[in-house]
Amino acid sequence: MLNTNIQAVVLAAGKSSRLKSGHNKMLEKICGQEMILFPIKMLENLAIETTVVVGFEKERIIACIESMQPDQVTFAHQQEPAGTGDAVRCTADNWHSDHILILNGDMPLVTAQIIEDLYKAHTESNAALSFVIAHNNEPSTSYGRIVQKDAQIKIVEAREFTGDVHEHCCINAGIYLVKRSFLQEHINHLNANKTSNEFHITDLVAIASEHNYVVKTTVAPFDYVRGINNQHELWAAEQIQRSNLIKHWMEHGVRFSVAQNVHIDLDVTIGVGSYIGCGVHLLRGTQIGNYCTIDEYVSVESSTIGDNSRVYPMSVVKDAQIGANVAVGPFAHIHHACVIEDNAVIGNFVELKQTTVGAGTKAKHLTYLGDATIGNNVNIGAGTITCNFDGTNKHRTTIEPHAFIGSNNTLVAPIKIEQGAFTAAGSTITEDVPADALAIGRARQINKHLYAQRLRNRAQGTLNCEPKAYTGPGSDTDKHTFTGAIKTVHDTIMYDDQQ
Amino acid sequence: MLNTNIQAVVLAAGKSSRLKSGHNKMLEKICGQEMILFPIKMLENLAIETTVVVGFEKERIIACIESMQPDQVTFAHQQEPAGTGDAVRCTADNWHSDHILILNGDMPLVTAQIIEDLYKAHTESNAALSFVIAHNNEPSTSYGRIVQKDAQIKIVEAREFTGDVHEHCCINAGIYLVKRSFLQEHINHLNANKTSNEFHITDLVAIASEHNYVVKTTVAPFDYVRGINNQHELWAAEQIQRSNLIKHWMEHGVRFSVAQNVHIDLDVTIGVGSYIGCGVHLLRGTQIGNYCTIDEYVSVESSTIGDNSRVYPMSVVKDAQIGANVAVGPFAHIHHACVIEDNAVIGNFVELKQTTVGAGTKAKHLTYLGDATIGNNVNIGAGTITCNFDGTNKHRTTIEPHAFIGSNNTLVAPIKIEQGAFTAAGSTITEDVPADALAIGRARQINKHLYAQRLRNRAQGTLNCEPKAYTGPGSDTDKHTFTGAIKTVHDTIMYDDQQ
Amino acid sequence: MLNTNIQAVVLAAGKSSRLKSGHNKMLEKICGQEMILFPIKMLENLAIETTVVVGFEKERIIACIESMQPDQVTFAHQQEPAGTGDAVRCTADNWHSDHILILNGDMPLVTAQIIEDLYKAHTESNAALSFVIAHNNEPSTSYGRIVQKDAQIKIVEAREFTGDVHEHCCINAGIYLVKRSFLQEHINHLNANKTSNEFHITDLVAIASEHNYVVKTTVAPFDYVRGINNQHELWAAEQIQRSNLIKHWMEHGVRFSVAQNVHIDLDVTIGVGSYIGCGVHLLRGTQIGNYCTIDEYVSVESSTIGDNSRVYPMSVVKDAQIGANVAVGPFAHIHHACVIEDNAVIGNFVELKQTTVGAGTKAKHLTYLGDATIGNNVNIGAGTITCNFDGTNKHRTTIEPHAFIGSNNTLVAPIKIEQGAFTAAGSTITEDVPADALAIGRARQINKHLYAQRLRNRAQGTLNCEPKAYTGPGSDTDKHTFTGAIKTVHDTIMYDDQQ
Repeated sequence: MLNTNIQAVVLAAGKSSRLKSGHNKMLEKICGQEMILFPIKMLENLAIETTVVVGFEKERIIACIESMQPDQVTFAHQQEPAGTGDAVRCTADNWHSDHILILNGDMPLVTAQIIEDLYKAHTESNAALSFVIAHNNEPSTSYGRIVQKDAQIKIVEAREFTGDVHEHCCINAGIYLVKRSFLQEHINHLNANKTSNEFHITDLVAIASEHNYVVKTTVAPFDYVRGINNQHELWAAEQIQRSNLIKHWMEHGVRFSVAQNVHIDLDVTIGVGSYIGCGVHLLRGTQIGNYCTIDEYVSVESSTIGDNSRVYPMSVVKDAQIGANVAVGPFAHIHHACVIEDNAVIGNFVELKQTTVGAGTKAKHLTYLGDATIGNNVNIGAGTITCNFDGTNKHRTTIEPHAFIGSNNTLVAPIKIEQGAFTAAGSTITEDVPADALAIGRARQINKHLYAQRLRNRAQGTLNCEPKAYTGPGSDTDKHTFTGAIKTVHDTIMYDDQQ
Repeated sequence: MLNTNIQAVVLAAGKSSRLKSGHNKMLEKICGQEMILFPIKMLENLAIETTVVVGFEKERIIACIESMQPDQVTFAHQQEPAGTGDAVRCTADNWHSDHILILNGDMPLVTAQIIEDLYKAHTESNAALSFVIAHNNEPSTSYGRIVQKDAQIKIVEAREFTGDVHEHCCINAGIYLVKRSFLQEHINHLNANKTSNEFHITDLVAIASEHNYVVKTTVAPFDYVRGINNQHELWAAEQIQRSNLIKHWMEHGVRFSVAQNVHIDLDVTIGVGSYIGCGVHLLRGTQIGNYCTIDEYVSVESSTIGDNSRVYPMSVVKDAQIGANVAVGPFAHIHHACVIEDNAVIGNFVELKQTTVGAGTKAKHLTYLGDATIGNNVNIGAGTITCNFDGTNKHRTTIEPHAFIGSNNTLVAPIKIEQGAFTAAGSTITEDVPADALAIGRARQINKHLYAQRLRNRAQGTLNCEPKAYTGPGSDTDKHTFTGAIKTVHDTIMYDDQQ
Repeated sequence: MLNTNIQAVVLAAGKSSRLKSGHNKMLEKICGQEMILFPIKMLENLAIETTVVVGFEKERIIACIESMQPDQVTFAHQQEPAGTGDAVRCTADNWHSDHILILNGDMPLVTAQIIEDLYKAHTESNAALSFVIAHNNEPSTSYGRIVQKDAQIKIVEAREFTGDVHEHCCINAGIYLVKRSFLQEHINHLNANKTSNEFHITDLVAIASEHNYVVKTTVAPFDYVRGINNQHELWAAEQIQRSNLIKHWMEHGVRFSVAQNVHIDLDVTIGVGSYIGCGVHLLRGTQIGNYCTIDEYVSVESSTIGDNSRVYPMSVVKDAQIGANVAVGPFAHIHHACVIEDNAVIGNFVELKQTTVGAGTKAKHLTYLGDATIGNNVNIGAGTITCNFDGTNKHRTTIEPHAFIGSNNTLVAPIKIEQGAFTAAGSTITEDVPADALAIGRARQINKHLYAQRLRNRAQGTLNCEPKAYTGPGSDTDKHTFTGAIKTVHDTIMYDDQQ
């Protein structure tokens, strides 16, 4: 348990210039959560009051943090970038606890345990300043390095370090716990760095050491204190977070096929006995039930999927509530507040948008259902299109239980197909269909004998191209009748036919 | 060569509780084959008679094994879980060979060579009991560890091991070869483990050693004797199997783009010079010909693909026979007993189900062909739908060679389009079309002048929304004529038009 | 800077038998570029005149190199495979510089720096022969190994090496710089290898050493001098090249989600702040703008994408020019010289081929637009199909600005929909539509009351199958009227209806 006499300062004001994205790295997402929210939530869980130092893109940072409605977060504004020392100084008016915890905002994998260990060591040793270190003997431009000599300790900035990384094998993690009294006395004595002209909080270590204060360090695993300064480090941190999540779900009875390229967000849950295929993405609060199969290359976002359901390969599901024993895909796209009830089947090249599909209903092929309410046990024929947009407004389609929509239907909304009604294949339906009625909206077929051959012959005679290889039965008496493009002929036939 | 005086006991009765899937792990598939079939097939190949001990979900285990119609497999039933020692005891009635090979059913990567090496060492040393060990000095809760002291050898269960893994760096693989006489004498002398209250076959080692029998060990590579107790180990074993398969096909002249995320089942074959793209899945008996290209994110299951064919990205092919020089996809879905002959082209957003497509035939866009028989050199227009289901039965569509199906056609089965016939774009075809005829089943177009503008103006006047930005040519004389929704206007126009 | 008195010989004549593809490995692509072009371009950049030795599939090799229009490349023909020594000898007529650089054509990752370092060491030491070595103590069948003894140095072929790889831990990279005078004197003194009966250029090292010429070696990182003899090495080299490219774009401000399975070709560029999702393929000269999002499993080839555009998951884009703020996909397929202007939206299951889409135009669902020119702010309804092919020729569709194409339209090209025109849902449009007109080409709907029930009852009576579970309102008076298949009934209804 932490003593409550501690408050935190989180540094989030930097320019993130090494990320080279033009934006503040604190808003980059790691497994679906903005980087800055990792320390904020961890501190919130520890009930530590927090001041966030903001500067670059501060409005976006503040909006992001406030969206989670934290209990104990305030903001301090650093007007101009002048280093971590200056950033801490900006929060001085807020200081009231005995100990000030200072941490960089770019360390999303830091755990509460690391903070608790630091606090324990700090208070037990009555240190003026304590900080977290980690073993890492790879040369790096991202971490200050610990240099100890003759009982003195200091942190040397990465770019100024010229020693042997194997001899000085510990890096500064960027987490400090400082007595308020020490901080108040010395924060204004920092000197600007000669190269960067910035004030570095790391210099407090040397100051404390030189003044013979107690300086304490605790060791954390490097992977948990990784900082994120460039795109490579951002990728690595997310990769570690992803691995941890997959390991977690493996331990809860989830089978992964090719685990190394599955992406799972932090707030996703997966039921026992479910199978997650290669390259699946489960995003933003998605909940997968028990004994589901999520096939390869499926993406599911902000959705729930009931027990024993299967999403076939290469489907995209977003913002949907899907029941039990449902089959979706392959190549399905379900989005924008859809509901699919138990035992329904949504097939290939089918899009659902703002649509409810009743239990046992099937829409299996090349269909667009938008703004539709569809009852139980309806059969939607292949190629069905709901015409929900008239150029100005969206309108709803209602299809009642047990209706049968023929293939290649065009349903012009607003429209209602009542219970048990049928529509004939190829129909355009513009009026409501009463219960148990059959609606037909298509032209009657006419066969024009040997016209296909005439078209073919004409094409041969004038254009000398496919399908020239074939000469069918029947004679070629009509070749000279046809001139112009095939299209014109088609029209001519239509005119002849109907006039 | 193995002496024939050996029989095997395979342990498959456990609860698989650490997998946490609720099911028996023996039926989890690794590269398409159930785990239990790996040792069964290996023993079958060695012509070793085998008794499988079943318990948890025994009906499913038995059904799985019997589906491969093994020659020499019998089953023994363990009524209640009481440990590996008890499981072996359940098979006592079957013992008749001189040597009993006992192996866990959860080691799918074990090779015949490992068994042969064990047998050779066992018989040459006249051992009472021999078993396979492997070097592994990582702490693990899955493997018993070998402890030797003063010429005595024993296996300490993972959860009871408290020593140094570097000193005791060998684990028990779970493969034992025991003289029948020794087994018969001592199997009933096992004591129940104090913690688990189960009988452990591993205790036979200490018994043999204490009684000064010869105990022999052989060493196998750890990767080949990996046991599978949890989801992580299951993933790792499949990953190794997958790597081995890919390495095998590389050695046979197959090029892999991003080999580390390709999935290949055990019974798949791939021809020389073929290219397998990123993330491809080749499943269940699929056979890929020579010089094929299988592009990224394609899944092929239970299908054959002829030489020089290409499957474009993100296609799903299942249960299909595809000829040579065929092009499929991208975004094609071919399933349920389809046949595609040489030089055919199946394009994007096209589904084929129980359909035969003749040589040189093309169906390139947004098409559903179900229960159809299509001849050579047919052209299927974009948006064609076969209406194969009338709500009660499925019916077939037959399209003869050289027919040309216009775009957006609705073909109401049962139907036959005869040789060389044409159908006009937008037609619903309900009757057979004779050879070389042209079938038309669509309404004639009518243009209502300036009606679009009226609709637009009305929307502007009453609804104030898009496409308000545009004011086209012509005057707005009719604004007040229109009331109600656009839909109603459309209907009105229809009525006006046709009455 | 290199002295200009150097010329190069690149060996590309081998049979590539270990690749087992049946083809010359020099034409295998690595990140989109043929293997042979890596050394050719590197030498071109160093302004070194080059002779390429060709043999197996020489026409294809020559065509490939000539397609890049190199300045200083000539070819020498090796008639029969007789080893690297013989291959070099084939170029003797071309020798005129003081130093001859000889390198294998199968080392795509070699850098100019390695050549420059070799040249510097060679000339500074006045060596007769210098060559590049690398540390690698894994047993390999692909690399000759350096053996030094008593001031003598030689290269032992991989298959003849029997020593300890840890003692002889350096391999021969296959890059030699030789004084012309030495080469001319000794190239004809090579002995045929006893096993292969071929002449090995590597034997020159022992010859030089035995004759007490100065022999110099320089060391390069193994990864940069990897040779490609089999599919595994080909995969590994491409994997390294891919990693380097991704690292490069990370350093330029591009965010990668699951970087390890992204594929990027050498000539691709990506703008600052863009996000590249899992499994994305960016191929052949593709240019991605700033702040774009390319979602998971998208493939983009030979295309440009403007700033702030997003390609949603599982889309395929090839040979397209896409503007800024455009949304594409998911499941879009854009190919063959398409242009999509700013702010357009191309949705799911939409194919564009040889089509131009104006700014702000939307085509969101299940649509095929081929050979079409579409103006600004057009709305293309769901299910729209352009009928661009009449069996003989392709025709164009023109849709002018602000037109509104109703859902499920069939547009029979050649056709023009003029500015501001509307087409009714379900229409087949065969004639041009004037500006601001409304075109209708569909049949009027008729509702046949209780006919659906009759169909259902008949199916129940005669077939006893679905949808039998439902008995709707209305009486079953008509059961015996219907005989034959549902299809016939439908037809009957049509006849009744329209006669």
